[in-house]
Amino acid sequence: MSLVIIGSAAFDSIETPKGRREKVLGGSGVYASVAASLTGEEVQLVGVVGGDWPESNTRLLESRGIDTRGLEIRPDAETLYWSGRYFENMNDRETLEIKLGVMGTEYDPIVPEEYRKSKFVFLANGSPQCHLALLRQMERTSLIIADTMDFYINNCRQALLELLTKIDGLILNDSESRLLTGEANPLTAARKIQQMGPQFVIIKKGEHGAIMVTPEGTFLQPAYPLENVVDPTGAGDSFAGAFVARLASAEKTGLETIKEALAWATVTASFNVEGFSLERLLEITRDDIEQRRDRFREMIVF
Amino acid sequence: MSLVIIGSAAFDSIETPKGRREKVLGGSGVYASVAASLTGEEVQLVGVVGGDWPESNTRLLESRGIDTRGLEIRPDAETLYWSGRYFENMNDRETLEIKLGVMGTEYDPIVPEEYRKSKFVFLANGSPQCHLALLRQMERTSLIIADTMDFYINNCRQALLELLTKIDGLILNDSESRLLTGEANPLTAARKIQQMGPQFVIIKKGEHGAIMVTPEGTFLQPAYPLENVVDPTGAGDSFAGAFVARLASAEKTGLETIKEALAWATVTASFNVEGFSLERLLEITRDDIEQRRDRFREMIVF
Repeated sequence: MSLVIIGSAAFDSIETPKGRREKVLGGSGVYASVAASLTGEEVQLVGVVGGDWPESNTRLLESRGIDTRGLEIRPDAETLYWSGRYFENMNDRETLEIKLGVMGTEYDPIVPEEYRKSKFVFLANGSPQCHLALLRQMERTSLIIADTMDFYINNCRQALLELLTKIDGLILNDSESRLLTGEANPLTAARKIQQMGPQFVIIKKGEHGAIMVTPEGTFLQPAYPLENVVDPTGAGDSFAGAFVARLASAEKTGLETIKEALAWATVTASFNVEGFSLERLLEITRDDIEQRRDRFREMIVF
Repeated sequence: MSLVIIGSAAFDSIETPKGRREKVLGGSGVYASVAASLTGEEVQLVGVVGGDWPESNTRLLESRGIDTRGLEIRPDAETLYWSGRYFENMNDRETLEIKLGVMGTEYDPIVPEEYRKSKFVFLANGSPQCHLALLRQMERTSLIIADTMDFYINNCRQALLELLTKIDGLILNDSESRLLTGEANPLTAARKIQQMGPQFVIIKKGEHGAIMVTPEGTFLQPAYPLENVVDPTGAGDSFAGAFVARLASAEKTGLETIKEALAWATVTASFNVEGFSLERLLEITRDDIEQRRDRFREMIVF
């Protein structure tokens, strides 16, 4: 099943204890799309970049089977640029520089005609207003999942609350769920979010895994244990993109499907952080994810 | 199979956001023994208390099938007393008062004749010198597991390193594993500890579960999700006591047994924190643990 993803496409300059990269490919929509493409599903990307966006980036995405007809290019503006540094623990980071470029201007997403009948939608990190504008153009969605972050919870609360009534699932991290609900306990926070609209809620706890609350029950997912984390950038985006794509690829829905999709997402994200930018995701295959997912299951099942 | 547990027996005064209790029964050996007794195994406790120790406490332990012949009473001294307060997050606490009493004096554990042929030993939180003295009296152990803490890592490092060469498994939390090895990554830390002696290492991450490294592989265990934590005191001790007792109750060893024992331990500890002191552990049965373990499995398996 085809899957529409809206999110940012960006240039990142990243410094971690393991090294640095200058102006490499990044952005929530790009990470989510590349991770999603590893399921083999057809990904349809919606986003906006500036005149400095090299054609080679578009070609790279297309080589992964990602449809880029929804990637608007604004020649007079610049692509989003983010520069950041991770601390020794790899959990905390500081933003060194951010240039919003095209993202600082008015952006009403235009969903290409060919995307509008897609049933699956992932709203990667971005403004809820923009997410709502995209949803208005979709014609027969069956599953809509959104990500969000502190900025939108603090600054676009009304639009976010409206968005929550229109989606099936929300993915956010533990500090964000606390910010949104005022609840420190992830289980309680997830239940409060369910009352705001989404049927299921996934709260990510970084290196400590994730908890998912659905109408059919609670599901716990430890993180895949890694000894060599190189660059955490995009871990959340690749997790979410992989999750939604895995659901899109499933023949049936239900708790078992959603549990396996969560494991698939965890494993995809574990590959992502083993290299800078998209380096690792671009060198692995669907088989690598399946094999690690099976090892992961062995580590969990008792 | 009978199981020897050495650890403290104490009075605790506890304050948490959910309430307070004055001078209630506590101590690492007591928590571990009561948790262990819930498996139905015969627990043999070794420890020391003062003249202020009420006979009713001993009777209570005996009513759980815990052999107290190894609990030495020193009439001229006082029982260990600890008073502490937990902060809002329930993870951090401060010690308000500690009176070592009998624990501040010379203590060479005396293992009753009837305990010496037991095959399973759990060395609950206590000094490594004391643990070594106990082990010298055991005649045919087949599985020895120890707990430790920052105080002994910092102050009794030599004795602790000697102890590590004599045990099969070590249970400690993530900050302790970092202190012992200098490694922040729990997987790397666990492997370094294996090189110090113990075949398997369990690193507890509090509300985030545990990771176990064995020669046969790595095992991940999320924490059982709770919305109402009342008192975290003794969670680690009940976890460890339940784990060792569950191994003692198993008919065969091997990775499957040890994985299930870890789940059993997690679930037992989850009950423990639902009440002050031993209140919850004293009202549940083995059936309650089995039922929650089965629900826990449902939350994990994919």
